[in-house]
Parts: sequence; C-alpha cells; structure tokens
Amino acid sequence: MASTISFARGAPSLDIVDVDGLRAAADQAFSSDPGGMTGYGTAVGYPPLREWIADRHGVRPEQVIVTNGSMQADAFLFDALVADGDAVVVERPTYDRTLLSLRRRGADVHAVGLEPDGLDIAELERLLQSGARPKLAHIIPNFQNPAGYTLSAAKRERLIELARAHGFTIFEDDPYVALRFTGESPATMVSRAPDAVVYASSFSKTVCPGIRVGYLVGQPELITRIVALATGAYISPNMVAQAIVNQFCRSGAIDRSIETVREALRERASVLCRSLSEHIPQARFVEPEGGYFLWVDLPEGTDVDALFDAAVARGVQFVKGSDFVLEGGASSLRLAYSGVTPAEIQEGVRRLADAYREVAAAS
Amino acid sequence: MASTISFARGAPSLDIVDVDGLRAAADQAFSSDPGGMTGYGTAVGYPPLREWIADRHGVRPEQVIVTNGSMQADAFLFDALVADGDAVVVERPTYDRTLLSLRRRGADVHAVGLEPDGLDIAELERLLQSGARPKLAHIIPNFQNPAGYTLSAAKRERLIELARAHGFTIFEDDPYVALRFTGESPATMVSRAPDAVVYASSFSKTVCPGIRVGYLVGQPELITRIVALATGAYISPNMVAQAIVNQFCRSGAIDRSIETVREALRERASVLCRSLSEHIPQARFVEPEGGYFLWVDLPEGTDVDALFDAAVARGVQFVKGSDFVLEGGASSLRLAYSGVTPAEIQEGVRRLADAYREVAAAS
Repeated sequence: MASTISFARGAPSLDIVDVDGLRAAADQAFSSDPGGMTGYGTAVGYPPLREWIADRHGVRPEQVIVTNGSMQADAFLFDALVADGDAVVVERPTYDRTLLSLRRRGADVHAVGLEPDGLDIAELERLLQSGARPKLAHIIPNFQNPAGYTLSAAKRERLIELARAHGFTIFEDDPYVALRFTGESPATMVSRAPDAVVYASSFSKTVCPGIRVGYLVGQPELITRIVALATGAYISPNMVAQAIVNQFCRSGAIDRSIETVREALRERASVLCRSLSEHIPQARFVEPEGGYFLWVDLPEGTDVDALFDAAVARGVQFVKGSDFVLEGGASSLRLAYSGVTPAEIQEGVRRLADAYREVAAAS
Repeated sequence: MASTISFARGAPSLDIVDVDGLRAAADQAFSSDPGGMTGYGTAVGYPPLREWIADRHGVRPEQVIVTNGSMQADAFLFDALVADGDAVVVERPTYDRTLLSLRRRGADVHAVGLEPDGLDIAELERLLQSGARPKLAHIIPNFQNPAGYTLSAAKRERLIELARAHGFTIFEDDPYVALRFTGESPATMVSRAPDAVVYASSFSKTVCPGIRVGYLVGQPELITRIVALATGAYISPNMVAQAIVNQFCRSGAIDRSIETVREALRERASVLCRSLSEHIPQARFVEPEGGYFLWVDLPEGTDVDALFDAAVARGVQFVKGSDFVLEGGASSLRLAYSGVTPAEIQEGVRRLADAYREVAAAS
C-alpha cells in the first residue's frame, strides 16, 4: 500500500514551519536575555512576550497570562469558572477535547447548532428562554474546529447582548484568527465587550505546535485568579519556549511565517474543495475562508464508520463527525488540510472517493 | 541600602548556568530533528529524551513520562493516587508547595519528623501502628528541601519494607541527587523496589529552571494512567524544550554543567557554614553534603518573624521555617545558597547576624 495520507490531524506540515527562523530566534533569545530565559519565571509568563501580546490586543499586560499551550489555558479557565453541574454552551459540532474537558468537570453541556455564519443564535435564544442559565459559552469564532465556519459580525454583536442580558461569559477560543485567506475577519468579541468575554489564542498555528505557547486575555481579576491556579500547577510556564516566541514575534519573523502558512493553506483548501467536487459530487461543504478544516456532510444514511474503515484500508485517514458532537454526526466527517501537500490531497481524495463508492454500494 | 541579598529562592545564579551550551543544544536540535521538535508530540514526552532518561535509570521507556517541570509531574501523580481524605505521609519540614498541593486535594497529611539521616522511621512506625493507612509517603531523599538532610541507605531499606508491609507507595522526589559535593549517594529507592516506589526528578537543577523539564519513573500501568491525565491537560509537553535538553544530555554538556554547579555549590555551602559559625555562633545546623539548602535552628524562643523583618530591613532575605511545616518551626529558617556568590554570602550573613542581635536583644 502507498504511504498513508492523513486528513486527521490538525497540525501543519513541516514545510510550512519556519525552522530557520526559530533557530535564529532561539540564538537571539539566549544572547539577549539569558537570565530571564533560563531562570524560574512566574505564572504570568515571560514578561516581554506578555507585553507583546497585550500590545497586539490593545490591553494592559495585567489582562494577559501566557501558558504552556492554549489547551492548558482552557483547563485553567474551566477550573476557575466551571463547577460540577454548571451549564455550559458549546457549538455543535465542536473541538472534541473541549467536550471531554467539560465533561470531566461535570459540566451540564448544552450543544447549540452551528450554521455557515456561526452559532445558531435563534436556538441559543430558545435555550435561554427555556430557563437554561449558562455560566460560559465556548465559541470558536474563526474557521471553527471542526466545521471551518466563521461567526458573522452581526451574530457576534447579538451574542454579546445575550451574554450581558443573561449573565454568562463568552469564551472566545481563537487559535486560527491569523489564518484568513482573503479579506478581514470581524472584530474580536473581546475587543467589543471586554466585560463579557475571555479570549484565548495560541502560537501553535503561527509558529509551531511543539513550542506549546498559548494565552488568555481577560479582566484583570479573572487573570489574577488564573495566575494563582497556574502557580499551583507549575510555578512558571516554559520560559525558554516563550523567550524564543518573543524573539520570533519581535523580529517580524512571525508575520512572514503567517504569510507562508496562509498561502499554503489557501491553496490546499482550494485543491481539496475542487477534488471533492470532482470525485465525490455527493459531498456537501462550505469552502472555508481560512484555517485548517473542512466539514463534509455526506448523504443522510451514509455509514461514516464503515467509510472510516474502508478509507484506512486504502491508506487515508480522517476524523468522524460523531467525535465532535454529543450525539449524531453519523454522516459527516472532518478533513484537515493543514498537514498534506496539494498532491497528497488529490491522491487522498481519490482514495476517499473509492472508499465512498464501496460503502455507498453496500448500503 | 546596598542591594538585597536573597537566601530565599532555590534557584541557581546565572553564572552557573551553561547558556552557551544551551544555545548550541538548541541549534543542534533544530538541525537534527526539526519535525519532531516543532510538531505536536504526545504526552509521554519527546521520545529521544524519554529513552535517555530510561537508559540512565535502567528501565524501559514505558516506565517514564517527561513533563513540563517536575511540579507538574507531582500534580499528575497526586491526581492519580490521592483522593479527598486519603492519608499521605510527608516529611517535617518539607517543600511548601508539596504541602499546599496535598492540602488543596483534601489529603489527610501526616508530617513525620526529619533527622540528619532522614525520616524518623520510629515515628513513622508508631504512626502506622496507631492505625494510619497512608496511600503515599512523599520523601525527598537527597539534600532535602528545606532541611538539606539525606536519607541513609539503612533507612531507605526500612522504608521500603514498611511500604510493602503496609501497602503504601513511596514517592521518591529527587531533584537534587546529582548535586552531591563528595562521595556517592545511596542507591535510589526506585532501583531497589520498583514495585513500591514512584520516582520524580528534574532538569531544573542540572540544566536550568526556565527549561521546565521534569519526569516520573514508575510501573508501566501507573505511567499509562498519568499519560492519560497529561494528554487531557496539555496534549503534549514542550517539545522544543525537551529536544534542547535531549541534545544537552547526549552531547555530554550536562555532565560538564553538573560539575560546574557542584563545585560552585560546594564552595557556597562551605562559605555559608563558616560565616554562620563565625557571626551567629548560636545557630545550629548540619553542614549539607549537596544540594541548595541549609536549615538553621536558632535558640528556642527566637522570634523568626521578627528576624525576618529585621533582615529585610537590612537587605537580606530567607524563608521562615514555619513555611515548611503544618505547625511549629517558629525558631528555624531555610537559607538557600544556590543563587548567591561567596562574597554575597559573607555580606548576607553579616547582615543576618546584625538582625539577629537586634531581635535577641529585644526578647
């Protein structure tokens, strides 16, 4: 069998990681601040990087904590805000690890449908009218994982109104924001309503995943609480990694890196959509405006479990739609195009189409 | 006032950190394994470093998890083994963050006295005879924090017998083991009794704290459970930092670094003990055989709270003994000599002696 082609993992291929830029940033960091980089820091993160992030968001450093990856930031935020039995709104579908993390904490998870322009606000309103009192609404506003959809500006404003009216916090989880192919993303919700929103992002998609640097932006009181949790967990996050990211950001390497990643992803998304249209005309999807992921709906009744096995047998991998919802998703799948070249995408879709024909014929 | 001299922080001064060696290790790591270093890893840690650690301990890689600092490893271990209300034995005095971490989990903490040759085994036996059923005994066997004492070989054997007889796990927390000034440390307990011991260590004291790399060695089943907890917390630890440590270890830089650190600490400990004997003859202490810390008992009734304030007023800092015990410790203090030069130590002890005279005269 030819080598496996993976549409499963939301990670960049090595050719779009600026390894030389990272090496130079490391070298520069060890020269310019050896003491700050090699010593214990504090749980707020490496101060120069914290300041750089604060500047980019137009907030004070006291509103930022830099963590070992944004998933660790999510965990601290949930520890601070979500108790056993608390209602939490998530998108349907949503990132599988967020679902797991909330369930592990005993949250009462309400999944609200996702439309091509983002959360189904009417469904959320019905949920709130029915008496649900969420503490938190977890939203991935740009190029959502797994759906690839983006929350419109109008829906962002309405969501903020609802958060203020019903007293819940919006958790704006935004790791993909920099990866827009064309045009401008709507303003972040945290910039519109800092009182009602906690924002998370990461350098995993703009620098590299192995560097494990993420962050939260929020009200100073909340950040102070989270800093205390982080101190108890690890004293300080990785100062060496954060100092490297700081140099990478301040030297301008990050802007070049983002441009490289964007261009590659734009091409990959385009090739994937064209290949799917050609080889699996039954597939329904919305061409993404950025990010890593394409959500594909197959005709109702398609057995995606069987498709998964038939695809693996042909050396192609994806994640089943059912992994991203509490229930349902049985005829959908997520294709990540971040880790595959255009040639691999074309070959992978051919294999997937072959698997699909087998499964469709059997049903 | 002259600049502050800190005996408070258990951290190395920058002059004994091999910054050039770290820079070279980073450069080499980015060249030799850019994909493994920049990509998502898994929660087991960076595989080549995991293997290096396993080799050093004579165990299989499946018995090792490499984490973001050993404090994070401790937290995972407590999450895996300690439930609300479980009895846990600690040393009296012990590392303040361990006490906090256990209390936060609702552990029923039993503090057993520490003697110059380690845990007071007779006191532990009385505790066990009285019906205590600990799940875990947390032991810092070499150059204990805060006391600087080392557990003798005979007591290690007896502790293992008790663990097996009473069904508790020994948590051998050993970050200072490499920092012995002369002679050989007794064999690790995990090497004597892998069935009864989980071992933790760290590169904070042999590479640098800011690199945040620690690890656990244990039975494969326990490590598998902890890997699952780590996956849920952060997907993977810092691959960039772990790849740098891996190069630092495999190039031999770590052995040179340990020698530098050992020699510096040996001199600092010696200067500190001589200065104390000269300027505060009332101080009682055991000259350490390695590590970062000296525990000082002052005459009973000495008001160490007042001494702390008088010392701060003279520009010298230490940690009060009471911070390391559940109760008591009122006439003791911990002096860390890891972050201060011999000249600073001499000046710091002169200031401390001046503060002590003031406090002693007032009582």
